[in-house]
Amino acid sequence: MAAEAVETMDGWYCLHDLRTIDWTAWKQASSEERQAAVQEFKGLLSKWEEVEAAENGSHVLYKVVGQKADLMFMFLRPTMNELTDIETEFNKSKFAEYLAPAHSYVSVVELSKYGPQHSEDDPRTLERLKPILPKWEHMCFYPMDKRREGEENWYSLEFKTRAKLLYEHSKTGRKYAGKIKQIITGSFGFDDWEWGVTLFAHDVLQIKKIVYEMRFDEVSAKYGEFGEFFVGNHLPKEDVEAYLHV
Amino acid sequence: MAAEAVETMDGWYCLHDLRTIDWTAWKQASSEERQAAVQEFKGLLSKWEEVEAAENGSHVLYKVVGQKADLMFMFLRPTMNELTDIETEFNKSKFAEYLAPAHSYVSVVELSKYGPQHSEDDPRTLERLKPILPKWEHMCFYPMDKRREGEENWYSLEFKTRAKLLYEHSKTGRKYAGKIKQIITGSFGFDDWEWGVTLFAHDVLQIKKIVYEMRFDEVSAKYGEFGEFFVGNHLPKEDVEAYLHV
Amino acid sequence: MAAEAVETMDGWYCLHDLRTIDWTAWKQASSEERQAAVQEFKGLLSKWEEVEAAENGSHVLYKVVGQKADLMFMFLRPTMNELTDIETEFNKSKFAEYLAPAHSYVSVVELSKYGPQHSEDDPRTLERLKPILPKWEHMCFYPMDKRREGEENWYSLEFKTRAKLLYEHSKTGRKYAGKIKQIITGSFGFDDWEWGVTLFAHDVLQIKKIVYEMRFDEVSAKYGEFGEFFVGNHLPKEDVEAYLHV
Amino acid sequence: MAAEAVETMDGWYCLHDLRTIDWTAWKQASSEERQAAVQEFKGLLSKWEEVEAAENGSHVLYKVVGQKADLMFMFLRPTMNELTDIETEFNKSKFAEYLAPAHSYVSVVELSKYGPQHSEDDPRTLERLKPILPKWEHMCFYPMDKRREGEENWYSLEFKTRAKLLYEHSKTGRKYAGKIKQIITGSFGFDDWEWGVTLFAHDVLQIKKIVYEMRFDEVSAKYGEFGEFFVGNHLPKEDVEAYLHV
Amino acid sequence: MAAEAVETMDGWYCLHDLRTIDWTAWKQASSEERQAAVQEFKGLLSKWEEVEAAENGSHVLYKVVGQKADLMFMFLRPTMNELTDIETEFNKSKFAEYLAPAHSYVSVVELSKYGPQHSEDDPRTLERLKPILPKWEHMCFYPMDKRREGEENWYSLEFKTRAKLLYEHSKTGRKYAGKIKQIITGSFGFDDWEWGVTLFAHDVLQIKKIVYEMRFDEVSAKYGEFGEFFVGNHLPKEDVEAYLHV
Repeated sequence: MAAEAVETMDGWYCLHDLRTIDWTAWKQASSEERQAAVQEFKGLLSKWEEVEAAENGSHVLYKVVGQKADLMFMFLRPTMNELTDIETEFNKSKFAEYLAPAHSYVSVVELSKYGPQHSEDDPRTLERLKPILPKWEHMCFYPMDKRREGEENWYSLEFKTRAKLLYEHSKTGRKYAGKIKQIITGSFGFDDWEWGVTLFAHDVLQIKKIVYEMRFDEVSAKYGEFGEFFVGNHLPKEDVEAYLHV
Repeated sequence: MAAEAVETMDGWYCLHDLRTIDWTAWKQASSEERQAAVQEFKGLLSKWEEVEAAENGSHVLYKVVGQKADLMFMFLRPTMNELTDIETEFNKSKFAEYLAPAHSYVSVVELSKYGPQHSEDDPRTLERLKPILPKWEHMCFYPMDKRREGEENWYSLEFKTRAKLLYEHSKTGRKYAGKIKQIITGSFGFDDWEWGVTLFAHDVLQIKKIVYEMRFDEVSAKYGEFGEFFVGNHLPKEDVEAYLHV
Repeated sequence: MAAEAVETMDGWYCLHDLRTIDWTAWKQASSEERQAAVQEFKGLLSKWEEVEAAENGSHVLYKVVGQKADLMFMFLRPTMNELTDIETEFNKSKFAEYLAPAHSYVSVVELSKYGPQHSEDDPRTLERLKPILPKWEHMCFYPMDKRREGEENWYSLEFKTRAKLLYEHSKTGRKYAGKIKQIITGSFGFDDWEWGVTLFAHDVLQIKKIVYEMRFDEVSAKYGEFGEFFVGNHLPKEDVEAYLHV
Repeated sequence: MAAEAVETMDGWYCLHDLRTIDWTAWKQASSEERQAAVQEFKGLLSKWEEVEAAENGSHVLYKVVGQKADLMFMFLRPTMNELTDIETEFNKSKFAEYLAPAHSYVSVVELSKYGPQHSEDDPRTLERLKPILPKWEHMCFYPMDKRREGEENWYSLEFKTRAKLLYEHSKTGRKYAGKIKQIITGSFGFDDWEWGVTLFAHDVLQIKKIVYEMRFDEVSAKYGEFGEFFVGNHLPKEDVEAYLHV
Repeated sequence: MAAEAVETMDGWYCLHDLRTIDWTAWKQASSEERQAAVQEFKGLLSKWEEVEAAENGSHVLYKVVGQKADLMFMFLRPTMNELTDIETEFNKSKFAEYLAPAHSYVSVVELSKYGPQHSEDDPRTLERLKPILPKWEHMCFYPMDKRREGEENWYSLEFKTRAKLLYEHSKTGRKYAGKIKQIITGSFGFDDWEWGVTLFAHDVLQIKKIVYEMRFDEVSAKYGEFGEFFVGNHLPKEDVEAYLHV
């Protein structure tokens, strides 16, 4: 008999959007052009802040460490259409003329009903399904799959076994309470992996520690397949101008 | 003894064609050039609509979420040559000068004779082999293979076993009747995977739910290998101009 | 004891050469330049036709379906040097200025001595080793390996087992006599896969049917590893001008 | 029961940054522009040397052999933010206009507590966690994972087994004392592999010898998965001008 | 107990360097520029010939068949630094402005002490460690690894087993004496695979035959993992001008 899918609760739609700055073109632009581009970009950031203030969505902006990209946005919105609208508006902006696409990931905030759950109407559940993203110093994003190979097939395990493995896993997570804020997003049918994991930390070392420690949890050791990892440092709106100054 | 191939019924040929807009070049064009490009593009869309009205083919256009592409076309036509003709005419159009190729997939609408079938002349069969594509709010496309590894070899299974696994799978599909419209296309010898799966939904969350739930079906859990996933929001002809306005 | 390699008979050297047209640059060229490029290209096609008429080689030209490439050439010549000469001459031509490389594959026409064979001097053998390529409506090309993994290791099987598996496989092939023309080329030491398979068909659906049906043959199900698939529609010399007209 | 993660001590954050020189653009620049770019670049090198002299970080610069890149930097700093600052300042520099990104890797110097350890306050520990990088003639960098496949799952092994395997491994390393200087950096949550390995050597052949010999250690033979390898020759600041002279 | 590494004798350092010609840019250059570029390039070839005449290194130049590259250089030098010097000088040359990097591979000529060996001072050993490369009509290059998967783990085999497997393998090689000249180079720590294999042949078909036949040797069938294959036709210095004439 086939294993049964567990139900999920799903919240805001999620877009991770990474871009690389063409610094040479940026320097070749006149300082007026650069100024106009920065102002328009800050205007977009302000507009998104208003959405967040109204609790109709949330977003963050980080500087990526290394050459995979320069900027990493994460957007949460109630509908998929709003994500496309954000992308389109940003793509049409002046600043986007100096950016190359680096990576993106489409998903939706997800809670799976493995353990004892709050109901969908419980404010604590709503808070987790429609989270205002923390603006902590560091952020990490990576996608993942559950393995389906021979004896190591997550999707053939009984519900109880999966629930137990995830419960053990959650205990590792709880050790990092206050140090790590984790958002799980599901991406079946939306992007190339099954889930996205976004971690926020004040101390970037805690990101390494939790990912390392969790790898020893049976659920990760035997069933976890991981994609690319992106790590970044927070870029608050008030620092954008200095960061882009040339 | 080797397993036997099941017969298939095959309908219209299918091309998924994804393109990325070069927004910088598009903005640098004069507004006359942009206007001319949009009008010519809308002319193509109208021409394709006439083909659809005459039931000689079908097509849809969606905006891709994320950076994998901006536009996703899906074309169905009675012959492979017509697909090349569409591509060539589109490639020669003015709008195509502002697009970069992002991805494509070549296949043919397919029904496999595992279960009780309508005859090839039955109107219900014809409708499934030569479908007029729905213009629902969301679309998802991904290619897939059946696994051939050691004990997990789809192509070594008896017909009956395969039929039973697919029958179980179809029951999951039927739960989504009215919520998800699914088109299966075969691509053996035409493209890099064995099948293409195209899903349409009014509520994009149903796409995630069906793909997730099906992964627990034994046929997917043990025999499914999946490629890239693309998800998009419908772009009706009357919204093209606004979408491309800069 | 190690399995023994079977002897092969080898014929003409083979180059598959795929190119993508830069339609924007092509349209920007003056009509005189385009005309000159087309005439020079047609001159090359005529020159290659003379080689074919003299039975010193063969070639075909197809339009690729989808975005993997626009044009797919297949060249057969008695020596590897002639293949490089063709490439170099074509690369130096005016038309090549509007083309980007998309893919290529280097191999040699091969018959393996698994079954009862004609001698190398038999005209039927010669015809198969130095074939004049059919100009049928459709063509498909893909590379393949034989698997070498644990129990599924083609290269550890006894000659007799391999011969039997290939004999079964050939029976599937024979069902498509007259519908599919197949050319097997070996590429050990020449390119990234072990063999290339080129299929010609009047009805493109037969390409899908044979590739699908053969996947159930034990030799493919257990030992076949497949690369990228390219499918195209025939482009006769007399249609080149219309195809390139902008 | 799940295996337990071993504790680690973590030191300076680490960025490997590889760049490819656009020699054609470099030659097309005026000799004044080139001169200005070189002077500014040497200024950055001097600034980084001051950081190193103050023991607030360390860096090296090597010329990569082969076409994977031309220049390989390795930076160590007390915080992740300082790594981004270095990148950003370098990206804004004139010399960077002639460089294309080739590769990067983000990690942190790591000592794992498998064996008998010095305490974190011991000067010998500090020296290893915050190392001044040697400026030896040759450098090699590669990332690696520990395998998690069926019976060969590092993360399911008991602590004692892992400790024993690593102890055996360390004996191979000790044979190369004085010939090879090795820096291990952890990259869980920071980049695509689990660890980075950086080797320095006076005699480049010792790099090949140690990597080869270690592959036979059980820990590598059964559990090591390796990524891309980069090898380079030291480029001291005083040779930069000659190296870049055209 | 872990298997033991066999000792190796190592000779000249080796760089395979492949480049693609930008024929459009080459044609757009003035004939004076092209002439100057060709003369300078021939000067480099002459300089390298002098090194070879003095037995301080060796090199060859081949035209690659197919679109992977146009030119394939192979350089041997006593030190890694000399390889970088060659690259840098070539990158700064005028001809290099018309070339794009295609591929490279870094390694060192290697003899492993599995069988009865000549001493390192024996002239026959020296000849094999510091070989003057043949200028035969055809050349093939590919990298390879020895497998490390479950039961098929080369690095866990006893010395005797490995020696026996390699001895069997060498018997296949010996059948091609006079037809194939083979150079084995080790690349542990230098590049992405463990070894490079370079084959020279008068008759290119012998390259296919030896690679095919060897695949059945147990050492290849069970333990060989192969990378990309490149095949080329010899380009003697005196033919360079004609080859580049446009």
